[in-house]
Amino acid sequence: MTTPEKDTRRVWRNARLATLDERLPGLGIVENGAIAVEDGRIAFVGPESELPAAFAGAETVDCEGRWITPGLIDCHTHLVHAGDRAHEFELRLSGASYEEIARAGGGIVSSVKALRAASEDALVRQTLPRLDALIAEGVTTVEIKSGYGLDTENELKSLRAARRIAEARDVTVRTTFLGAHALPPEMNGDKAAYIDKVVGEMLPAVAAEGLADAVDGFCEGIAFSPEDMARVFDAARAHGLPVKLHADQLSNLHGAALAARYGALSADHLEYTDDAGAAAMAKAGTVAVILPGAFYFIRETKKPPVALFRKHGVKMAVATDSNPGTSPLTSLLLTMNMAATLFGMTVEECIAGVTREAARALGLVDEVGTLEAGKWADFVLWDIGRPAELVYRMGFNPMFARVRSGQ
Amino acid sequence: MTTPEKDTRRVWRNARLATLDERLPGLGIVENGAIAVEDGRIAFVGPESELPAAFAGAETVDCEGRWITPGLIDCHTHLVHAGDRAHEFELRLSGASYEEIARAGGGIVSSVKALRAASEDALVRQTLPRLDALIAEGVTTVEIKSGYGLDTENELKSLRAARRIAEARDVTVRTTFLGAHALPPEMNGDKAAYIDKVVGEMLPAVAAEGLADAVDGFCEGIAFSPEDMARVFDAARAHGLPVKLHADQLSNLHGAALAARYGALSADHLEYTDDAGAAAMAKAGTVAVILPGAFYFIRETKKPPVALFRKHGVKMAVATDSNPGTSPLTSLLLTMNMAATLFGMTVEECIAGVTREAARALGLVDEVGTLEAGKWADFVLWDIGRPAELVYRMGFNPMFARVRSGQ
Ligand SMILES: [Zn+2]
Ligand SMILES: [Zn+2]
Repeated sequence: MTTPEKDTRRVWRNARLATLDERLPGLGIVENGAIAVEDGRIAFVGPESELPAAFAGAETVDCEGRWITPGLIDCHTHLVHAGDRAHEFELRLSGASYEEIARAGGGIVSSVKALRAASEDALVRQTLPRLDALIAEGVTTVEIKSGYGLDTENELKSLRAARRIAEARDVTVRTTFLGAHALPPEMNGDKAAYIDKVVGEMLPAVAAEGLADAVDGFCEGIAFSPEDMARVFDAARAHGLPVKLHADQLSNLHGAALAARYGALSADHLEYTDDAGAAAMAKAGTVAVILPGAFYFIRETKKPPVALFRKHGVKMAVATDSNPGTSPLTSLLLTMNMAATLFGMTVEECIAGVTREAARALGLVDEVGTLEAGKWADFVLWDIGRPAELVYRMGFNPMFARVRSGQ
Repeated sequence: MTTPEKDTRRVWRNARLATLDERLPGLGIVENGAIAVEDGRIAFVGPESELPAAFAGAETVDCEGRWITPGLIDCHTHLVHAGDRAHEFELRLSGASYEEIARAGGGIVSSVKALRAASEDALVRQTLPRLDALIAEGVTTVEIKSGYGLDTENELKSLRAARRIAEARDVTVRTTFLGAHALPPEMNGDKAAYIDKVVGEMLPAVAAEGLADAVDGFCEGIAFSPEDMARVFDAARAHGLPVKLHADQLSNLHGAALAARYGALSADHLEYTDDAGAAAMAKAGTVAVILPGAFYFIRETKKPPVALFRKHGVKMAVATDSNPGTSPLTSLLLTMNMAATLFGMTVEECIAGVTREAARALGLVDEVGTLEAGKWADFVLWDIGRPAELVYRMGFNPMFARVRSGQ
């Protein structure tokens, strides 16, 4: 709120803007640009020469010709988890078999055990350094999934920890309930009984506390079938929650098409998605979330069908998939480089993928993801000569300043 | 020097040490360890219970159980360069042909032009942020090559800039003269005449100013032949300078064997090196410098023969190859992850590769690269639970503190 006592207006001038505004071509570039902010929202974006007179007296930041992009958005993470799987990584490199790794306590079960043993405070404490790594590179919005609790108490604990993180740091957190991530060991292989529990007990409890902004699942031979996922999605719909899906990562179970049928915000991974799946996603407006970190880390060779997504006009986001087992990755800049280098995504697609399209994958594109009047004033100033540098470099952070809600 | 006024003794206690001492197995781990330092050198490394009584009164740092490794060493970089090649990267991703990129001013020629146009001051200024990225991850020694000047004046300028960097930051810099990096455009394709200039004019000038610690070349179809390189190596020998070689990166010209024949400190890249090459390197004590960043960035598919190097007992180092054209990489931690993920190097090989073996590749293994009494007190404290975390994570920096020369 504006009060007569405090002027919340602020102007950033002398900047080069990559607005990502879809009404403009490419990255929506505005040279000699300015952004005016009032009450935490963008009031004006455009050439400095057109800055409204009302902002003449506002506090002004001279950007000295630096580039500004929207705040970065990591739209797919498992950031809340306990411990790590570095030892499993080490064993695998030393030539240990899967059996040996399992005997040494490896695999997702080890992450489930660690999460169940951790307190909510410990989860927050362990997550913050990972979040801080993302924030240091200009992330202003992050999605966080549950999915290592796999029972009501521990899924609730995970989502509460994710919500608390939004209070501990100056960042927007969107939470996703991923009860259908893996079958917990105590279910002894009974997937149907576990899905009963997900839809009949866990999801209602999550919804009752308002802990989730969306519902997700892992549709794969080693996880849950399309039929299982349809039951979860029906339940999500009954609770008024949008859905997402880990789809077609290791085989084509037509997860992309399933997600589209439910009007999912996004389908994620998609290495094995086919033409029909891409067409269905385009029609439904389901965003393809490309996750090169997992592809790289598990030495996958089948690439997601970027050309098909382009052909059908499917919007593509890019995210870290930050998780201890298959993508211990906490750099969205590096993730863009991987999407370009490994999948041939263009600079424009990569930058749109961590801003506008990532916002779309979270159902937030009316609020963030581009520099447009009316949206939250979340943006980043960069010490770069051209936007391509954000994608080109590996292990270098050119962030100059990060602005969230105009602060 | 110790003076009666100033006690230069200092102790780090309550640490877990990965000493990399070859007399110990694996990473040379010492639990409940301590390091005692005097006059910038390590005076004692071992179990805290065996700390010499002479250090009882010294200033003491409680490491609170943190891990300590030797300072990291990046033994192959082209860190001194001007501008970047982000635009070329962008064009290539947009589907531009090599001809179009060349017409747009791409390729190594663009880096040569940019370097020649830059002042020595500008080179230092542009290099420091890249160096700072390395230092922030615990690098205490870095090698820097010339090779974008390609004439006497500009090669000297590059090496002087590299020497000045050692004064601007608390880091050891080793410089390498890489006149035989590429044929400059003004030579109109006359490689023999250029090599005449390298050995007859450039190298003598570099040696006269004491600007290089080693001599390197690029032995490849697109660069210089083994015969050209033998001429450069003969000249280096005449000046008393050790040699290195960019060898067998894109084809097998038997560069590894050539390097071994000259007793090279290292042969680098080595994707196409064969059994005989590896055997020759082992016999000569030539270190294999593995450069996964370039492999990844140029989407190479032929991997260096790590198994052959193991079989013959060739020591392996790991480095960034930081350069604007094929490896815009400024994270040695990420480089280790690439060596593990892309080439299957073990955690132990990766960590030895950026410490002990990197020191060996620079001819510095008697001074740095391990935690041993008598060596410089260069080491890093890490916020990790086990050394494997340094290799496992991507885009995360767990450095707690960096100590150079005991400071
Ligand atoms: Zn995921
Ligand atoms: Zn190189």
